[in-house]
Formats: sequence, C-alpha cells, structure tokens
Amino acid sequence: MATHGLVLFGHGARDVRWREPFERLAEKLEAVRATGDAAGPVTLAFLELMKPDLPTAVGGLVVQGCDVITVVPVFFGQGGHIRKDLPDAIERCRALHAGVEIRCAVAVGEDEAVLDAVAQYCLRQV
Amino acid sequence: MATHGLVLFGHGARDVRWREPFERLAEKLEAVRATGDAAGPVTLAFLELMKPDLPTAVGGLVVQGCDVITVVPVFFGQGGHIRKDLPDAIERCRALHAGVEIRCAVAVGEDEAVLDAVAQYCLRQV
Repeated sequence: MATHGLVLFGHGARDVRWREPFERLAEKLEAVRATGDAAGPVTLAFLELMKPDLPTAVGGLVVQGCDVITVVPVFFGQGGHIRKDLPDAIERCRALHAGVEIRCAVAVGEDEAVLDAVAQYCLRQV
Repeated sequence: MATHGLVLFGHGARDVRWREPFERLAEKLEAVRATGDAAGPVTLAFLELMKPDLPTAVGGLVVQGCDVITVVPVFFGQGGHIRKDLPDAIERCRALHAGVEIRCAVAVGEDEAVLDAVAQYCLRQV
C-alpha cells in the first residue's frame, strides 16, 4: 500500500504569528493521520517569507518513504500563486523525485463546506 | 434597532478569478441576511489590487443606513496586513464616519470550526 504524504501549502508572511492557524491545522491532521486508513505524514510548506519551501517539504516526505504526495493549497482564491507559481514548484519537485506521484488539490477556499464554515463564523460576528 | 453592515475584507490579487470564493461567500451571507434578525447589507473590500478598498466599502454601507459595521478579515493568519494595515484603514474609516460604530473581527482562519472544515477538506484529498 502506498504511503501518502500531505503538504499544507500556504503563502507565508513576515510575522511569525501569521503561521499559527497553519500549525493548528497540521496538528489536527497529524492527530487523524497518525493511525488507520488515513495514516501518513503531514507537513507545511510556504511560497515565500517562511520555511520550508515546497521542494524542501516534499524532499522530507520522500525521505519518510512517501510514494504519493498531495499538496493542498491553503489559500482562499486561486490567483497567480496557485495557477502559476505552485504548478511551477510542483514541476520542479516532480523532476527531482521521478518515482513519486505528486498531486495538487484545488485551493481550500473553493470548497463549499469551507465557505459554509466561514459564512457561519461571519454570522456569529454580527 | 441598529442596521448592522458586514464587510468581508480580503487581500486582493491580480487575477480576477481569485475573487470567486469571496463572491460566493458574499452571496451566501446576503441570502441569510436578506430577512430576519440577521438582516443587513453585506459587501466585499480589498487591501490591494482589487476594488473597492475598505473606506469605499464602509462609505457605501453608511449610505445604506448602517450605524454599526463589522469588518471580518477573510484571511487565514493574522500577520502585518491584519495587525497593522487593517487597523490603520479602520481608523481612517472611523475618522470619516464619527457617528458609526466600526468593529473588527478576528481573521476567519483563527476560528476552530473553519479550521475543522479545512482539515476535513484536506482529508478528502488523500
């Protein structure tokens, strides 16, 4: 059975506190993926201003034995970063790890259930 | 009773397609806020690269009769944009509309239920 790694890909920022929700998200997913059918490592990666970058994160998962890796963009919208920068970075990763299947998901903000949760949060503020 | 307006505040991007989830979010909220206890107008605003900016959006809500306005940052993390740029813009809005109460919520990505929905989305990708 394939070992399936998960990369949570964020933009990055100068302020280290920006990273907190990403760390919490990784912890939630690590807790679920520690055992059972969904088992597999979880890691963060950033486009800029924070480390690790995507090739470093993917390299770490390959070292851990992953033969399938899914990159999930933790972005709301799909602009140039997701339509151009991320595919370019994924192509570099595929060239470095020819035996590993590297997939890319749609940005989390495009998901209906995520938008519903955001809408519910907004309604609790008014 | 106060008329309570809601501003969904996003970063903005060059690619117009980036805006789609924000439009969908506004539509969801407009549907709920069209009638009943939660009634009140909903609008988008952006930090950069897209229009309207926050003062323009807030001005539009004031024209619609809002005397309380809540700005919800549709960001994952709270970095410099939320800790510095947004408070500065809100102060400018308060100076322009002294009779209007302008509140600012914590970024949506800090909310536990939003992070849970993002985590569930991630799990469906692996």
